[in-house]
Amino acid sequence: MNMRDIIIAKRDKNSLTDEQIKFFVEGVTDGSIPDYQISALLMAIVLNGMDEREMTTLTLEMAASGSQMDLSYLDGVPVDKHSTGGVGDKITPVLLPLIATFGVETVKLSGRGLGFTGGTVDKFESIKGFNIEVDSKDFPRLVKETGMVISGQTPDLAPADKILYALRDVTGTVDSIPLIASSIMSKKIAGGAKVIVLDVTCGSGAFMKDYKMAKELAEAMIKIGKLAGRKTVAVITDMDQPLGRFCGNILEMQEVFDTVTGKGEEDVIEVVTELAYHLITLAGKDAGMSEEVLRNEIRARLSDGSCYEKFKALIKSQGGELSPSGYPVYVDKPFDSMHVNSPESGYVQGMRADLIGQASVLLGAGRLAKTDSIDYGAGIGFFVKIGDRVERGDSLCALYQGENSTLPEERLFDAMDLILEAYEIGPNPPEKKAAILDVIT
Amino acid sequence: MNMRDIIIAKRDKNSLTDEQIKFFVEGVTDGSIPDYQISALLMAIVLNGMDEREMTTLTLEMAASGSQMDLSYLDGVPVDKHSTGGVGDKITPVLLPLIATFGVETVKLSGRGLGFTGGTVDKFESIKGFNIEVDSKDFPRLVKETGMVISGQTPDLAPADKILYALRDVTGTVDSIPLIASSIMSKKIAGGAKVIVLDVTCGSGAFMKDYKMAKELAEAMIKIGKLAGRKTVAVITDMDQPLGRFCGNILEMQEVFDTVTGKGEEDVIEVVTELAYHLITLAGKDAGMSEEVLRNEIRARLSDGSCYEKFKALIKSQGGELSPSGYPVYVDKPFDSMHVNSPESGYVQGMRADLIGQASVLLGAGRLAKTDSIDYGAGIGFFVKIGDRVERGDSLCALYQGENSTLPEERLFDAMDLILEAYEIGPNPPEKKAAILDVIT
Repeated sequence: MNMRDIIIAKRDKNSLTDEQIKFFVEGVTDGSIPDYQISALLMAIVLNGMDEREMTTLTLEMAASGSQMDLSYLDGVPVDKHSTGGVGDKITPVLLPLIATFGVETVKLSGRGLGFTGGTVDKFESIKGFNIEVDSKDFPRLVKETGMVISGQTPDLAPADKILYALRDVTGTVDSIPLIASSIMSKKIAGGAKVIVLDVTCGSGAFMKDYKMAKELAEAMIKIGKLAGRKTVAVITDMDQPLGRFCGNILEMQEVFDTVTGKGEEDVIEVVTELAYHLITLAGKDAGMSEEVLRNEIRARLSDGSCYEKFKALIKSQGGELSPSGYPVYVDKPFDSMHVNSPESGYVQGMRADLIGQASVLLGAGRLAKTDSIDYGAGIGFFVKIGDRVERGDSLCALYQGENSTLPEERLFDAMDLILEAYEIGPNPPEKKAAILDVIT
Repeated sequence: MNMRDIIIAKRDKNSLTDEQIKFFVEGVTDGSIPDYQISALLMAIVLNGMDEREMTTLTLEMAASGSQMDLSYLDGVPVDKHSTGGVGDKITPVLLPLIATFGVETVKLSGRGLGFTGGTVDKFESIKGFNIEVDSKDFPRLVKETGMVISGQTPDLAPADKILYALRDVTGTVDSIPLIASSIMSKKIAGGAKVIVLDVTCGSGAFMKDYKMAKELAEAMIKIGKLAGRKTVAVITDMDQPLGRFCGNILEMQEVFDTVTGKGEEDVIEVVTELAYHLITLAGKDAGMSEEVLRNEIRARLSDGSCYEKFKALIKSQGGELSPSGYPVYVDKPFDSMHVNSPESGYVQGMRADLIGQASVLLGAGRLAKTDSIDYGAGIGFFVKIGDRVERGDSLCALYQGENSTLPEERLFDAMDLILEAYEIGPNPPEKKAAILDVIT
């Protein structure tokens, strides 16, 4: 078997055999296949696609390319949740303690943010003392204590995927359903999950810009999950505007705090409830409740203090500071440095979440390069969202900076310009869009 | 401008701008674009194609990537001929002296053979003393002496094409009309040609296996030629069986000798005449002759001794030895070591020229790797070709080896097996196929 023949097979629209895919992934992992052959095959896959079997084999081979987590110490079926990313996506820090109240234990491996989609690791790091680089030897102890652990340390999971991803980024081969789906699923499977619930975001602030593409990606991952023997559900969620009221690290953790203490935004609660529902039922922890009862119970735990208790336990167990009255202590103080005012009166028709994400990165809340440092206090708070009425001169949103921000003033104005471009104001109230667009099983 | 955006543009089926193609070729030449990005773009071009303008720009940029020959010292318009390769293709050594008799001067840069399509350089090297590595400083003097020069030394012509070709070979991106057409045309243009006559071979022994593909390639090159301001004609020739009676280096030069002394095979004469006709007329050296008169005159010069005189002059001017009676002296003596006999009676229906080419390489007449040495005396002589009648046990062909050949005997049997597979014998006479399938202008 040689790589040239494999490239030619895909170039000529053939289905690759399991042996060919295995040869490819092993050669990527051990460095025996040169970059230029890998990228030629990636482009052929982007343009000629892959069928279900090929995607599944690629996924499983990438999952097998490094160490695979053994989560047999968990009480119950190992579950995992993955989001394809968005602006203001603060679901994970709410979801983990929420499902923990139902006895669903989770080992959550998470990444740092890059570009305008923030990373869960950065959000937790905005809490003073919180140790996100947990050694995997400590996972069982921490899970026993609180029912969950979150870690940014994921050294050798699916190394083939890491190599391929780095190459895809510079060779224009990112946009491919089979490659995206197998990349996501390989990491989940290597992470030990038997139940996988996917939050496939869709809209201007997401990687998938329209519903059709999001659905296609969701279906591809469901197929891989089925063929790989993992219970998988995909929830397609709206990302045509930021999720919740804030984006930025401390600002979002404050909103997480609000959500786990019963004062959350409805869109955040809807998405969290939907994901929690599927995780709890697929993990077999629904205790025989009917769908309606379980959904009500999930919402109830956000306001009855039980989710809040689990949230505090998580923070304490990983070294995070809590004030005597139970508030997280943050590494910085966001201050409200400028408001962006509406240039006209009307209803908010649209909010280009991608531009808002870019504005947030400009303010220092995100990274453009992996080595950039971030301002944990930076971000944006939205006074109005789609459907809200504004009068000319009303504030649309507030721009935040950390206390010691050294941001040049012109960056604030650049961010403002992006936000003015993002908000679309029109005379009539727009149709309300649901936070959950579809559930695919 | 950056390479990633260029890759994405082609991936998304856009036409690349002239600036993008220039950026790409310059980056390939100076090494600033990494191989993995080059190969991703090549695959996108293979699968999404290029329009006429893109092909022409790519051709001209590749031609401009190194030195470009100045042939202003020639008497008349610089012409060039290119063949896409075949088995038994001995056209160039006949064509150069033939058109020289009409005053068409040629500087012919030629390559060594690789795979089963023999190289003109190797054929001339089979003549004792013939110096094929001519310094370009000597070209004007040699052309003045005999009207032609042939050289294998082509140091810095279209270096971008060399880099791309090496990468295409290992990344499954060879089969692409725009890439093949621009590769060929870039070398011709860098070589200084204003008139280009293309011999596009077609059939089992050619790169283009069927007429449709050959025509598509011919048309692409004609378009590039037109847009680049070069007079271009493409002749599509049959390569479903070897050309002439012999393949192998000395054996083919002997057949060249036969052809320039009026004893050539009809298929060789037809192809040579067709190419000569276009070169002479496009170079303006037809002296007002009508097509019919000119074609007859071309054939006449093969038998009236004038082409032979020019052929001898070429050999002498580049140091080649001639016997006192005017025969070339070869570096070896081919001896007839085995005959392959027909397993049945009937008519030759087909001769898989690719298998015959492989058999010839097995005998030592060609190279599998660039560094392989060759046996100048090795090759095959065909007693029967398509349409001929054979009886069971009759010889189909003779296998030749050089006098000092150290070929293991089993290689002879392997070659024999290939030849038996190549010859298709059937009960009825097949339809005769013309040597010239089409002329595209």
